[in-house]
Amino acid sequence: MRTQPRPPSTGRSLEHPDRDLIRLEDVLHALSDPMRLRIVCTLAGSEAEQSCSVFDLPVSKSTTTHHFRVLRESGVISQIYRGTAKMNALRRDDLEELFPGLLGSVLAAADRQAARRETAAR
Amino acid sequence: MRTQPRPPSTGRSLEHPDRDLIRLEDVLHALSDPMRLRIVCTLAGSEAEQSCSVFDLPVSKSTTTHHFRVLRESGVISQIYRGTAKMNALRRDDLEELFPGLLGSVLAAADRQAARRETAAR
Repeated sequence: MRTQPRPPSTGRSLEHPDRDLIRLEDVLHALSDPMRLRIVCTLAGSEAEQSCSVFDLPVSKSTTTHHFRVLRESGVISQIYRGTAKMNALRRDDLEELFPGLLGSVLAAADRQAARRETAAR
Repeated sequence: MRTQPRPPSTGRSLEHPDRDLIRLEDVLHALSDPMRLRIVCTLAGSEAEQSCSVFDLPVSKSTTTHHFRVLRESGVISQIYRGTAKMNALRRDDLEELFPGLLGSVLAAADRQAARRETAAR
């Protein structure tokens, strides 16, 4: 449940692949980068859409923009302009319909890897 | 169960990452190519090791070799020389230990995608 109404989408729209055109290879490629995986894990942990600006990645702004674009063009996330903000959300339902369990197993794998690294760093 | 004994490994050995050094991002990258995904699906459907020469991919021999190398270096497959043949096998147990369910969900997703394409082509 959202606590406040979202601003409506502005006219500018971004291209997204139709669900049936989402390719497994592209999804896996999109998820194969540490920064993009981090973005996806953050989005997975949030009910609401997230603005690009909340992601504090250790890369340049243009690289960040590139990563979001790869995620959108592969069908992993949707992006929509609301006011001046570009808002991001996982395309969970589409991915689940196409590839049941895939996103969940990748997110779980990312969690396990992060936990393993944390243990190793101690 | 194998019906005949395998020739022993010859001296030449190939580098493989230790299980604990296998990175999720590398595994996803390895699986994000159609040819490599095809190799992995074939290996998954076979109990025994498979020689590189049984994979009839629509790419050059050097590209095929490259794909096998990416799969090996990412930790997805093991490769071993037996006589003059380079034999390949999925590192199922290692992947399952690190990332439970991941390989299975990717293989299932690849199956679903192939079935969808077949239906669309009719």
